[in-house]
Amino acid sequence: MNDQATMTAAVLTAFGGPEVLAVRHDVPVPVPGREQVRVRVGAAALNNTDIWTREGAYGTADDPDARAGWLGPIAFPRIQGGDVAGVVDAVGAGVTSELLGRRVLVDPARYAHDGPDAPITAVLGSEFDGGFAEYTVVDAARVHDVTGSPLTDEQLACLPIASGTAMGMLERAGIVAGETVVVTGAAGGVGLAAVGLAAARGARVTAVTEQAKAALVEQAGARRTIDRSGPVEDVVAAVRAAHPGGVDAVVDVVGGDQLARLIDVLVPGGRAVVAGAVAGPVPAIDLRRLYLHNRVLIGSTMHTAAHFAKLVDHARAGDIRPRVAARYALRAIHEAQQQFLRREHVGKIVVVPADTTPGE
Amino acid sequence: MNDQATMTAAVLTAFGGPEVLAVRHDVPVPVPGREQVRVRVGAAALNNTDIWTREGAYGTADDPDARAGWLGPIAFPRIQGGDVAGVVDAVGAGVTSELLGRRVLVDPARYAHDGPDAPITAVLGSEFDGGFAEYTVVDAARVHDVTGSPLTDEQLACLPIASGTAMGMLERAGIVAGETVVVTGAAGGVGLAAVGLAAARGARVTAVTEQAKAALVEQAGARRTIDRSGPVEDVVAAVRAAHPGGVDAVVDVVGGDQLARLIDVLVPGGRAVVAGAVAGPVPAIDLRRLYLHNRVLIGSTMHTAAHFAKLVDHARAGDIRPRVAARYALRAIHEAQQQFLRREHVGKIVVVPADTTPGE
Repeated sequence: MNDQATMTAAVLTAFGGPEVLAVRHDVPVPVPGREQVRVRVGAAALNNTDIWTREGAYGTADDPDARAGWLGPIAFPRIQGGDVAGVVDAVGAGVTSELLGRRVLVDPARYAHDGPDAPITAVLGSEFDGGFAEYTVVDAARVHDVTGSPLTDEQLACLPIASGTAMGMLERAGIVAGETVVVTGAAGGVGLAAVGLAAARGARVTAVTEQAKAALVEQAGARRTIDRSGPVEDVVAAVRAAHPGGVDAVVDVVGGDQLARLIDVLVPGGRAVVAGAVAGPVPAIDLRRLYLHNRVLIGSTMHTAAHFAKLVDHARAGDIRPRVAARYALRAIHEAQQQFLRREHVGKIVVVPADTTPGE
Repeated sequence: MNDQATMTAAVLTAFGGPEVLAVRHDVPVPVPGREQVRVRVGAAALNNTDIWTREGAYGTADDPDARAGWLGPIAFPRIQGGDVAGVVDAVGAGVTSELLGRRVLVDPARYAHDGPDAPITAVLGSEFDGGFAEYTVVDAARVHDVTGSPLTDEQLACLPIASGTAMGMLERAGIVAGETVVVTGAAGGVGLAAVGLAAARGARVTAVTEQAKAALVEQAGARRTIDRSGPVEDVVAAVRAAHPGGVDAVVDVVGGDQLARLIDVLVPGGRAVVAGAVAGPVPAIDLRRLYLHNRVLIGSTMHTAAHFAKLVDHARAGDIRPRVAARYALRAIHEAQQQFLRREHVGKIVVVPADTTPGE
């Protein structure tokens, strides 16, 4: 239990460029309400959503150019940061004191109801304050005790959003041991997590990635990599050459024509699961390639409570080892985001509130 | 057990127009081989595949303009007819004589293996001789005893291909009681079967169909119908107006832009299942409308052995009542196909070998 009154936090003051993200040292330490806990943040990881939410780049269903967060309006000031690992240091009414001092991984989602497959209604660091701070308050039901995990806080903080999204994809596609899985965008946050999680469940992973990052993607669990730098036809031909009998599943965060063509590489009954479409959101899809072979195209966003529980099992067992690409003090979050946006890293970039050294 | 040596059959002699389909009276009665039975055909139903196979309209993966059947080359002469109900009148070696005299519904598929979800490797009336004949020989494992069914042979013959395909769609989409389901092409063979089967499992069906056929589609089990005659935007708007909270599933045999837009009417986690694409095989699909809402696009062709077993349960219980739109003597098959191709009927058109009256 701390007796600080104020803390350091990165505060988003409005939609805009990096200048609207302010590191402040006078932010009130939050107090947990009923059924909530306060977590002293050990580490928090960076995600694309931090940037896109700051820019208000999500638009709305009615107006794609409107400035909005993922789920709609953002209330400012807002502390971002959906990926939090740390230690419970205070509990609110109705929460057992046994949680005090436990090392926890925070499920960043709030759900519509208590069922295992409930839809997500709000996300940590978007609709409510998150982990780019010394302390954050979350619902007690959303903290998972990982005290015994062999992973560091920095490794744990790599997991929730990227690996939660990847776990959602693997679960929704029903990927099991022994299956052959193609992962696209495999050096990105979600892609790299999908490689590691698919390998952890015994799938044989072929990863599509840039040559310079191939070694690290193989280290994460890919049995082979395919160079993504050529035209889509070449990438798909290389996948087909590597798997003349077809692949059981495609785990895709790229979209566009490449996804449309990768459907053709699936075995009968094969599944393509998609969670993003940076290469093109509205590709032409040949329905015949789906229905003549009983193939399935599955959309997937983030995770469910059931998926997250499976991710926590991996965190506890330590059978996945997320790669920390870089580590910054929280006060150096602007430098951290600059490196993030250069997109040369493989793995996750984390910020550490307890680190009081100047930024790199 | 009959002691006829020859029989009447409609024999396809080559790819071509109606002239390559010859009604002959000197066709040898087939003899069941090991693990096979002979069925005296009570009724056989017409399907699009009869026409398309006769025309060789399926093409091949390498050459869309090649003349080929659904699964590739067709050996002539070929007796078509994949929808057969009748009575077992002879058994081959290794088959129990208890089957003799049983009224059966024939699963038209041959499967790659004995598992419940095995892929289909051949289809009755396409890769081997079918039911446009007085007798047909099929694998004993593929006949289902429906002796006690309240359905007539003509009603039973309506089921295998159209209702098997519809059952495959409902099963692959996991449609359950209480769900709201939109069925497109609802007056067609597969569509009408999907309406009846979805209603039989307690789903609430909204059917998209032409106005003139709406009453019969409602009789088949649709709670409401939506006129398909307007532009796609109007059809989709009408579905949305009828279901402002979204629909759980879309069962589609039409494809094209309409399917692409109907995806948007699905609830989060909703499923669209597609088995045909007469309105356009390669629509632009907005992947964001899939992944942001965890929606799924499922391709489905025909059925599995497990699906067919569920269809047989309905046939035995009589809780579906397929509509016989018209009935012809087998020898009048050309007239039957002419009516079929006018596409004014609702339900299935059947031919009856035992009927020796001249065609209508």
